[in-house]
Amino acid sequence: MRMYDIIEKKRDGFELSSDEIDFFISGYCNDSIPDYQASALLMAIFLKGMNERETALLTHAMAQSGDMIDLSEIDGIKVDKHSTGGVGDKTTLVLGPIVAACGIPVAKMSGRGLGHTGGTIDKLEAIPGFNTGITRENFIRNVKEIGIAIAGQTGNLAPADKKIYALRDVTATVNNTALIASSIMSKKLASGAQRIVLDVKTGSGAFMKNLEDSVKLAQAMVRIGENTGRHTVAVVTEMDIPLGKAVGNSLEIIEAIETLKNKGPRDLAQVSFELAARMLELGGKGSFEHCSSLVRHAVESGEALEKMAVLIEKQGGNRAVINDYSLFPRAKYIFEYKSETAGHICSMKTDTIGVASLVLGAGRETKESSIDYAAGIYFHKKTGEKVEKGEVIATLYTNREEKLAEACGLLKQAVELSDARPEEKPLILAYIDAKGVSSY
Amino acid sequence: MRMYDIIEKKRDGFELSSDEIDFFISGYCNDSIPDYQASALLMAIFLKGMNERETALLTHAMAQSGDMIDLSEIDGIKVDKHSTGGVGDKTTLVLGPIVAACGIPVAKMSGRGLGHTGGTIDKLEAIPGFNTGITRENFIRNVKEIGIAIAGQTGNLAPADKKIYALRDVTATVNNTALIASSIMSKKLASGAQRIVLDVKTGSGAFMKNLEDSVKLAQAMVRIGENTGRHTVAVVTEMDIPLGKAVGNSLEIIEAIETLKNKGPRDLAQVSFELAARMLELGGKGSFEHCSSLVRHAVESGEALEKMAVLIEKQGGNRAVINDYSLFPRAKYIFEYKSETAGHICSMKTDTIGVASLVLGAGRETKESSIDYAAGIYFHKKTGEKVEKGEVIATLYTNREEKLAEACGLLKQAVELSDARPEEKPLILAYIDAKGVSSY
Repeated sequence: MRMYDIIEKKRDGFELSSDEIDFFISGYCNDSIPDYQASALLMAIFLKGMNERETALLTHAMAQSGDMIDLSEIDGIKVDKHSTGGVGDKTTLVLGPIVAACGIPVAKMSGRGLGHTGGTIDKLEAIPGFNTGITRENFIRNVKEIGIAIAGQTGNLAPADKKIYALRDVTATVNNTALIASSIMSKKLASGAQRIVLDVKTGSGAFMKNLEDSVKLAQAMVRIGENTGRHTVAVVTEMDIPLGKAVGNSLEIIEAIETLKNKGPRDLAQVSFELAARMLELGGKGSFEHCSSLVRHAVESGEALEKMAVLIEKQGGNRAVINDYSLFPRAKYIFEYKSETAGHICSMKTDTIGVASLVLGAGRETKESSIDYAAGIYFHKKTGEKVEKGEVIATLYTNREEKLAEACGLLKQAVELSDARPEEKPLILAYIDAKGVSSY
Repeated sequence: MRMYDIIEKKRDGFELSSDEIDFFISGYCNDSIPDYQASALLMAIFLKGMNERETALLTHAMAQSGDMIDLSEIDGIKVDKHSTGGVGDKTTLVLGPIVAACGIPVAKMSGRGLGHTGGTIDKLEAIPGFNTGITRENFIRNVKEIGIAIAGQTGNLAPADKKIYALRDVTATVNNTALIASSIMSKKLASGAQRIVLDVKTGSGAFMKNLEDSVKLAQAMVRIGENTGRHTVAVVTEMDIPLGKAVGNSLEIIEAIETLKNKGPRDLAQVSFELAARMLELGGKGSFEHCSSLVRHAVESGEALEKMAVLIEKQGGNRAVINDYSLFPRAKYIFEYKSETAGHICSMKTDTIGVASLVLGAGRETKESSIDYAAGIYFHKKTGEKVEKGEVIATLYTNREEKLAEACGLLKQAVELSDARPEEKPLILAYIDAKGVSSY
């Protein structure tokens, strides 16, 4: 078999075989296939596409390129959730304790963030003492004992995906549905979940900017899941506006705790509860309606909040943070961003808000940057709300006083006012499973 | 400017600007653009195409990447001829002396061959003493004194093309009309010709296997020529059958001399005379009909043959070869390949015949191989002719006795017989100039 023939075949629009896809992935991983041949194939795939079968085979080959995590020691159906990422997305911190409280094991391995805010792991590290680097043995033991553990990814998960993604990133071959879907799903397959709920974000703060592309990506991932033996469903959710009011690590943990106390922002609660109910449904806890009532009960009874407290305690954190937010790192500089005019907020450029939080210190600009857990933005007003002239739209938190002006400039670009109140948009836009797409 | 953006632009089907094309070519030549980005762009170009303007800009940038040969010292209009290559193609050796005899300077720089037989330079080296490595000064002086010089390419002509071609060769991006056309034309632009006659071969022994693709390539090259200020015309000629009867270096030189004596095979004479007349027409010698009569006169008067003799003498060769073919290197083994049945030759797989001549020693398998000037095949019968059982179809010449069986096996595959006489096909299929395509 020759890589040349594989490139030529895809270039001419033909379907690649299982052997050809395996040859490419193993050859690229062991450096017998050079970057320049891989990038030619990736461009041919970008322009000629891959069908459902090829996409599943590629995903499987990338997953198999490294460690395959084995969660079989843990009893019960392991359901994972994955979000394509957005600004203010702290749903894992809300739904993890809920799902665990309802009896579905949560064995969550999560990445660090690169960009506007940290990832789930970074956010949890804002809790004094919380250890995200627990061993594989402790991780499994914790899930067995308390039903939940959240740790940083360890091991060599889907190295082929990592290598291919780095090449795509410099050859303009990132933005292709089949390639994005296989990249995400290869890591999910390797991380051992049996069933997967996907949260595909759509809008200005998401990777996919419009609903059509988001639904396509969701469908592609659901098909990969089903074709590789992992029952998968997807929910497409709004990311044209930050999720919740808090952006930044400590602020987001506090907001998640508030939501577990049933006092969180309506949008965050709605999305988190929806995803949690979908996870329970996939875990075999009954109909979606029934699972939704289980979720509500877990929150209203305080069981989910208690699960959060136990999770924090078990991983070395100070569970007192649940009731005393002053224990979180605090920013030296707090600034109120006020509206210069009166009107209704008609749009929030969510990617720009992400950049503003990064500037304040909440995210990493490069892999080596450290995160300031105290930094972030808290929005008192969001899209659809009325603001008076001089009213506070957002509070900025930072330890970098010199960056406040830049962040305010970005907020000014991001938050747009109009006279008329904009139409309200639904938060949850579509549900996708093997049977098809349902709109909300 | 970033290479990433250039790849993305072409990927999305947009036209690249002059600056973007120059950035790619200069960056790829100075190694600031890596192979994997270049191959992604080439695949995007392959699949999304380049328009006439982009193709001319790419050609110009590749030509400018190295030496630009200056022939301005030579008076008169310098007309070059280029063939896309085929089996038995010795037209340069026939038309060079004819065109020079008619008063158009022939300053021919030519490459060595890789594959079935040698290039023009290799063929000339079959003449005892002939020096193809004359200096630039002697080359120019000879053209001034006797109107003709043929030498090996020296200097660093279109290095960008060389580097890009090597990459295309391993990334399945060779077979694209715009890329092939710009590759050929970049070397023509760099080699200093003001006007260019292209001989685009079509058929089983040519790079382009069918007439439609050959005409497209011819049109693309004519447009490049016109768009870069070099008046260019093209003739599409038959290569479904070897040109002439001789394949192999000494054999081909002898056949060229015979043709200058007006005793050569009809097909070789027709194609060579046609191309010579087109060169004279481009050189301002009058209408095509008038130029055709000039060509006939140059041959019939013996002036063209004398020009060949003078060329050989001037470059150190023994002009006595003109009348004494025994002065050429002679093969130790001569074998007659006979027909096993009776019938009409209905087709000759010309690429396979090329391989047979290579096996006998007439060509180079790698850049380092040496050529056996005596080796080759002489066809007594070609497509359309009747053969009796046991009649000699071809004579094989070689110094590698052990290769005769393999070469005969290849000829058996290549030469196909049928009961009925096949239809005769025209030799010259189309003429292309800036105004369009005319069929013959």
